[in-house]
Amino acid sequence: MDPRTGLSVVGMVGAGQLARMTHQAAIPLGLSLRLLAASADDGAALVATDVVVGDFTAYDTLSRFAQACDVVTFDHEHVPGELLRKLESAGHRVLPGSAALAHAQDKRVMRERLSALDIPVPRWTVVNSATDIIEFADGHWPVVAKAVRGGYDGRGVWFLSGERAARELWATGIELIAEERVSIVRELSALVARSPYGQVAAWPIVETVQRDGICVEVLSPAPGLDDVRATAAQHLAIRIAAELDVVGVLAVELFDTGSDLLVNELAMRPHNSGHWTIEGSLTSQFEQHLRAVLDYPLGVTMATAPAVAMANVLGGPAGGSGIDERLHHLFAMDPAVKVHLYGKSARPGRKLGHVTAIDDTMDRARERARAAARQLSEGAT
Amino acid sequence: MDPRTGLSVVGMVGAGQLARMTHQAAIPLGLSLRLLAASADDGAALVATDVVVGDFTAYDTLSRFAQACDVVTFDHEHVPGELLRKLESAGHRVLPGSAALAHAQDKRVMRERLSALDIPVPRWTVVNSATDIIEFADGHWPVVAKAVRGGYDGRGVWFLSGERAARELWATGIELIAEERVSIVRELSALVARSPYGQVAAWPIVETVQRDGICVEVLSPAPGLDDVRATAAQHLAIRIAAELDVVGVLAVELFDTGSDLLVNELAMRPHNSGHWTIEGSLTSQFEQHLRAVLDYPLGVTMATAPAVAMANVLGGPAGGSGIDERLHHLFAMDPAVKVHLYGKSARPGRKLGHVTAIDDTMDRARERARAAARQLSEGAT
Repeated sequence: MDPRTGLSVVGMVGAGQLARMTHQAAIPLGLSLRLLAASADDGAALVATDVVVGDFTAYDTLSRFAQACDVVTFDHEHVPGELLRKLESAGHRVLPGSAALAHAQDKRVMRERLSALDIPVPRWTVVNSATDIIEFADGHWPVVAKAVRGGYDGRGVWFLSGERAARELWATGIELIAEERVSIVRELSALVARSPYGQVAAWPIVETVQRDGICVEVLSPAPGLDDVRATAAQHLAIRIAAELDVVGVLAVELFDTGSDLLVNELAMRPHNSGHWTIEGSLTSQFEQHLRAVLDYPLGVTMATAPAVAMANVLGGPAGGSGIDERLHHLFAMDPAVKVHLYGKSARPGRKLGHVTAIDDTMDRARERARAAARQLSEGAT
Repeated sequence: MDPRTGLSVVGMVGAGQLARMTHQAAIPLGLSLRLLAASADDGAALVATDVVVGDFTAYDTLSRFAQACDVVTFDHEHVPGELLRKLESAGHRVLPGSAALAHAQDKRVMRERLSALDIPVPRWTVVNSATDIIEFADGHWPVVAKAVRGGYDGRGVWFLSGERAARELWATGIELIAEERVSIVRELSALVARSPYGQVAAWPIVETVQRDGICVEVLSPAPGLDDVRATAAQHLAIRIAAELDVVGVLAVELFDTGSDLLVNELAMRPHNSGHWTIEGSLTSQFEQHLRAVLDYPLGVTMATAPAVAMANVLGGPAGGSGIDERLHHLFAMDPAVKVHLYGKSARPGRKLGHVTAIDDTMDRARERARAAARQLSEGAT
């Protein structure tokens, strides 16, 4: 407990944009979020007081950090599972716990568990040789290969066009699983939060639009999704949260095949597909994550508008006007759009921020969010 | 400019709850707010990175602080006017400027200026002796005496019951003005923001409910206020902002006599009567204040719900359960209420936080906000 506030100290490993927005949500709750940053220039480290710079793969660093926290949670899933288990053995409160988090860290563990629970996933296989991939393909290429650990934003995913590609990838030594390439209509995301007490709150199901494996737009609620399928998707996420004993926010990324919903990925932290909740829901995913890991009763997730569209602001080619000038132009163009900048230096394709538009119709919200993201992007004039 | 973000550095003198909530609003804009705190334990200093602890009445401290900022603004109006003028002369950007701010710092300057502009104010007089008060009263007591400088939250205001009280107060040496005690139906607040460019944005007119001179509730929109009077109040605030060359948020506290609207006080900073805008308006007063002092186009002030009620959480008698336990109970009681804690230690009557309820009807919003504030107050079990 922080003697200055009488409230728990929540520690977050990682100080990227998720930690930055979680800190923003922590302020009204009276909390002082403590961060373990990789660098003093991390987006969240620029705006939070209580920042330790250190290596999250070093147990001593993690242990010292955890000692000063009532609960430790995460901005990413890259802390090695063995260190998490060691922290737990030493009596630290780690949420989500290592056993749950393993399913977001290791795609094979995740696929095995979901398959055992009879939860629909793409057809997949463990890969122990290039031959395993080739046999799995059975002449039907492309096959999707995924790194078991460490992939994100499209990294760690390969579409293999044939045997040669399979052999080349296998030769890199990366640990893999292989999956069928699912023919999909679109991608959806089911976002829920769960507390240690077992309470679960679900947000509306959203559509996520990807480009080059990176989420570029999120539409809430998912256009044209009927109530029966939306409720089924919420129930699926709630079931996964409960079965895996997740605490905090769980994002279940779904493939919509038109007839079925298949689970693609799991993330156990605030998620890009939930950024719209900052303005679009009575309780944001960041506030809810904090309420969940503190075992407070969860907040109401009611949408605040008929249509909410979020678009990511990605780094583009260098040049053009500076961010300050681009903000001026954007606010003149659309004084109702909400901007979130992450304090990150620009790199092509890097997520530098996002914008959210709420409106009466999705067409209008989406058009405004896209225009705003374009206006804010590097290289725009 | 902050080389890490490419954006301006906004400095705020004072690190209380207004700075705390402004910092929260600065994060999505990509800014790093710089604070001049009186103490490292100030509410905003607990959650912001870039905090200088120093004396805001010492020119050297102010000057060093201003040198590291692109613009300096305020969480309170207590910086002496002569120091502000000196900062301006030295080339620092101070917003609102010293000339505007004088009207929020000195009640005599404010009354003189508003009177000269023919803006309705209570009947008032300059006081240069106890006799001035007595002559102003002309046998009709009580008379309201106000300290020319330094009063807030009911401090610096006296209801004088007769000649003896007038003489006793005068004998303290406090510089005073005297005013009629206006018979009012209620108090209102007109909140606007103005940029250096001259753009002004107004929020809906709200009703403020005071107890012992402290604002305890704010209702938006003000119940039963017809459109004509509401618009007139907005125009009044816009005119004052323009005439006084205010930059940033301006709160015009109004007496509603049933027939007239008289200006009571001015504040040139985010204001207690605008805390509801965090959830209740598309653009909060804190974001708008930042946009204004940075001369960005202002945000849309549209209300997000039919009724918004805010209630302050005041320190009560010691004892009862701790804040952590009270938060648990509150969230269980009302999972839709939004909580804002300021990170301040408890003292009877001190504003420790506020709660906001948005709802379909004002009766319901108000009832929920009151119940939540009661639940969170010290001494509640």
